[in-house]
Amino acid sequence: MSEENTPTSKSTDINERHRVRMERKKEIVDDKIQQAQRKAGVIVITTGNGKGKSSSGFGMVIRAMGNDMKVGVVQFIKGAMSTGEEKFLHRFPDEVSIHAMGEGYTWNTQNRERDMEKAEAAWAKSKEYLSDPSIGLVLLDELNIALKYHYLDVHKVIADLQARPPMQHVVITGRGALPELIAVADTVTEMQEVKHAFKSGIGAQAGVEW
Amino acid sequence: MSEENTPTSKSTDINERHRVRMERKKEIVDDKIQQAQRKAGVIVITTGNGKGKSSSGFGMVIRAMGNDMKVGVVQFIKGAMSTGEEKFLHRFPDEVSIHAMGEGYTWNTQNRERDMEKAEAAWAKSKEYLSDPSIGLVLLDELNIALKYHYLDVHKVIADLQARPPMQHVVITGRGALPELIAVADTVTEMQEVKHAFKSGIGAQAGVEW
Repeated sequence: MSEENTPTSKSTDINERHRVRMERKKEIVDDKIQQAQRKAGVIVITTGNGKGKSSSGFGMVIRAMGNDMKVGVVQFIKGAMSTGEEKFLHRFPDEVSIHAMGEGYTWNTQNRERDMEKAEAAWAKSKEYLSDPSIGLVLLDELNIALKYHYLDVHKVIADLQARPPMQHVVITGRGALPELIAVADTVTEMQEVKHAFKSGIGAQAGVEW
Repeated sequence: MSEENTPTSKSTDINERHRVRMERKKEIVDDKIQQAQRKAGVIVITTGNGKGKSSSGFGMVIRAMGNDMKVGVVQFIKGAMSTGEEKFLHRFPDEVSIHAMGEGYTWNTQNRERDMEKAEAAWAKSKEYLSDPSIGLVLLDELNIALKYHYLDVHKVIADLQARPPMQHVVITGRGALPELIAVADTVTEMQEVKHAFKSGIGAQAGVEW
């Protein structure tokens, strides 16, 4: 066996190649960071049929709270359930303001006119948060659903979003994000379902679905 | 103008069609819920190149906390940054146990052997959480990266995951989830980047990226 093939020199070789590759990667990343220095409030959208859209929004809520930012949360459509997030966030009335619509998913109400009224009321509350520069992050949970069903006018929503304080961040969740909204957003993630426990007969559970 | 075409009858018609469609939707959803009644700890994976993988994991952490569950968090790879989530969750030492690796992303260390040691130490801590039935949810943040770089053996990781308490949930995040891990997971979401603020020159910001 030649020296080059001994396990030790092999693993030294792997480690060295790794070091060189990572060094190059660091240069690229540092370079990108150098170029991306502008600070501004951003609009983040999480959409798609996969799990994780709302929980990602709530993750950003605690990220903001960890940075001493005040947060406003409006839940469109979903409000009927007392979810884990809601129960948890109600511990912090001085840091997080929450407005939850009084009804569940639209297929539980089957009353479009009432849904539209509730969506309008929720948007009025959203506008309050979107006009308050002391609020650093606004989460509009499931807003995409309300827009998809035309409970709210997307052009009015976009105008209000664009009139918000310049440093305020907005997170919008829900499947079926409208193209008009995607066009004005800064960061958009499509969450695609690869597999779902529900389909193998496992029900919704505390800590995972609610 | 015939009566059918007046705005009022038109909107009544839309509302009625909506009601019927939603009623049917409710039946389908109720039926699915009826079938999915099994309770069991699940493995949830969030992967892909889009934003929202870790924040979705942290959203599930607060969802669990809202349901009075104890949580264990291990951060693989990313630990160097004191993120907003970390700062926030450190407020709750009795509810959340956190283990963060001492180094940043691997391209900041460029030392594969040290990374491997740290990954092994982080896995030892994960195993502690995965052996403790009082912990309802374990978040293994960025574990996929450690597996992708072969810092940890995926078969050993799977064996330890499968030996955990039957009602314990596990959330695993990070791009490039290995097929072996996807095979044993219950719910998998691929987060795809549609747009990212970074690319239009906006830097990482408090409350959004950290």
